[in-house]
Amino acid sequence: MKKIVVLGGGLVGGVMARDLSSDSNFKVTVVDRDEGVLAALKSRMPIETRKADLSDLKAVGALAASHDFVVGAAPGFMGFEVLRTVLEAGRNCVDISFMPEDATDLAKLAKDKGLTAVVDCGVAPGMSNLLTAKIEGELDTMEDGLIMVGGLPVTRRFPWEYAAVFSPIDVIEEYTRIARYKEHGQIVEREALSDAEFVNLPGVGTMESFNTDGLRSLLNTIKCPNLKEKTLRWPGHIEKIRVLRETGFFSQTPIEVGGAKIRPIDLTAKLMFPMWKLKEGEEELTVMRVEGSGHKNGKKKRIVWDLLDRTNPKTRETSMARTTGFPATSMARYLMAGKLNKPGVHPPEAFGRDQAIINHLMSEQRERGVVYQETVEG
Amino acid sequence: MKKIVVLGGGLVGGVMARDLSSDSNFKVTVVDRDEGVLAALKSRMPIETRKADLSDLKAVGALAASHDFVVGAAPGFMGFEVLRTVLEAGRNCVDISFMPEDATDLAKLAKDKGLTAVVDCGVAPGMSNLLTAKIEGELDTMEDGLIMVGGLPVTRRFPWEYAAVFSPIDVIEEYTRIARYKEHGQIVEREALSDAEFVNLPGVGTMESFNTDGLRSLLNTIKCPNLKEKTLRWPGHIEKIRVLRETGFFSQTPIEVGGAKIRPIDLTAKLMFPMWKLKEGEEELTVMRVEGSGHKNGKKKRIVWDLLDRTNPKTRETSMARTTGFPATSMARYLMAGKLNKPGVHPPEAFGRDQAIINHLMSEQRERGVVYQETVEG
Repeated sequence: MKKIVVLGGGLVGGVMARDLSSDSNFKVTVVDRDEGVLAALKSRMPIETRKADLSDLKAVGALAASHDFVVGAAPGFMGFEVLRTVLEAGRNCVDISFMPEDATDLAKLAKDKGLTAVVDCGVAPGMSNLLTAKIEGELDTMEDGLIMVGGLPVTRRFPWEYAAVFSPIDVIEEYTRIARYKEHGQIVEREALSDAEFVNLPGVGTMESFNTDGLRSLLNTIKCPNLKEKTLRWPGHIEKIRVLRETGFFSQTPIEVGGAKIRPIDLTAKLMFPMWKLKEGEEELTVMRVEGSGHKNGKKKRIVWDLLDRTNPKTRETSMARTTGFPATSMARYLMAGKLNKPGVHPPEAFGRDQAIINHLMSEQRERGVVYQETVEG
Repeated sequence: MKKIVVLGGGLVGGVMARDLSSDSNFKVTVVDRDEGVLAALKSRMPIETRKADLSDLKAVGALAASHDFVVGAAPGFMGFEVLRTVLEAGRNCVDISFMPEDATDLAKLAKDKGLTAVVDCGVAPGMSNLLTAKIEGELDTMEDGLIMVGGLPVTRRFPWEYAAVFSPIDVIEEYTRIARYKEHGQIVEREALSDAEFVNLPGVGTMESFNTDGLRSLLNTIKCPNLKEKTLRWPGHIEKIRVLRETGFFSQTPIEVGGAKIRPIDLTAKLMFPMWKLKEGEEELTVMRVEGSGHKNGKKKRIVWDLLDRTNPKTRETSMARTTGFPATSMARYLMAGKLNKPGVHPPEAFGRDQAIINHLMSEQRERGVVYQETVEG
């Protein structure tokens, strides 16, 4: 019997807890600062719950130490310190928090303690990293890499045709932060939302892709001169967002309005975010394409991985939570089974040439209805 | 020598004063509450100026009484009371203020005093009314009438491709107020910005037209079962405006943001209106089409009047001010010459069958570079 602690009881944390707790070999504790969230989870699955704020690192350390394994699902801005605390407590872990810091800065700490942490272990970042590295390994030279990913409501409603399954303020951040790419071997910077283009994807029709800053560790780990990551939305969303952005509605600089000083983004959040809520029972989908092309044995070759997942009609679990959570729980099971001996802090691309891990992740996700499909040309 | 007072020294008031003061038979006084505006006007033309707030009706009455003729160019919300005061002071006048009230409610006052006032005497309302009535008069039965009008910057800049030559808050009002039409003889109501459609107009290319509430007196005065008024913008503007409107950015209901209560429209005005300012030296244009169709002598007939005016390259006077101001000054000259004996308060369509007035207005505008062109089919 392994004792697992899941740090964070949000949408993805909940799905991970449900998945892990369905295995009678695991005893799962979920930690969150919101008692309502914990109570709701407990009513649906055989878990223990613990109320704690994850910014209380003492509590995090004690929780890690009193369990055998840690699954990290803290908000991004807390992620790095939570991970450090878990490693200091001497526990292996997988993590899906979208932390702005470079988690591999903690590699020495992990190695010194003989620990293994897999970070960014969701869908994108996550499976996108693993598949990009897998493609790189299957080509003699990889010349172009492209990741496109989006989570969207099935029903499109004017004006936004969007529901933020992650924190909406993080989505705005994604819409304003400079995007980094690799072009001809150089890291280049582009305005977010730039290079909008239509793309037809099987099962979903025409979507619009645009630049966002999602490559993260791949910028340095993949040997490929041209590498891009683009976010997908229903066509038209981007231009509407640009209208707001260019007019200043996302500005964080306070301005005076009717005698009060307010940040435009705060009003925008108040008006727009309620429209971005996934409604009770509303269907959504997650679509991702990871592709790479180059040469193999002197011939051109292109490899494409496609994912299309939808709200699970039985469990009502969102595709976003499923596609993000299952790579992490699957990797957690792999680590707990003692099958990986590679102390350090690893992004998923570290296993791009490890077919045993890839098979494990793919088959466990497939059992849960999350199916990746490969197309090879050349 | 006639003494004329121009009430309001804004963009249009200034052009009217310049036009009237260029005639040595007139002595022109411009009234405004802004001394800077008055000083700027005085430096450019031979006029007297008087600082006064037009909401001070005593001052308005005294100014009217001490001049022979009044040209009204007050902001719309003051227009009705200013007109009443002028009539009570016993003066004939032309007015271009876009007042929400029905000016003909003052007809009895005018008739009792033997006075003539022509209201809504600009381009639209104004020439649009006159031409619609002229068309009505030239058909045995008029079946469809359509007015399309827009004032726009020549250079289109993302995201708005627009400059508000009138008060921008009045433009937002136009984007939110229910629009009234005549369909099959019934007055119907439509949402503002509805029925967007592309239209190709000579010299300007493709524009987008949409419903606004601009028919005013024409709803009652023109015998035609189908009558529409649409505003013109560069394509795309309307959808962007709808994005803001539907998200709540035009709301006048205060909401709490960061501890303060603010009206979303006030923030929107602060961010957006500076982008809607016509830049120094920036070219703009005014485009209008007034058309009507029906039967004449048992045969189908369609009559179209087109106007396209641009910023005057010598005087730098905007097309908006020119096309709005010249019908009023031209009508003022006609009245002062004693050529019209029709006590009452008249919208321009009252003269749609008076070819002498129409010729006078058309030829005086043509001399000033504002040219209406007629096309007749059938």
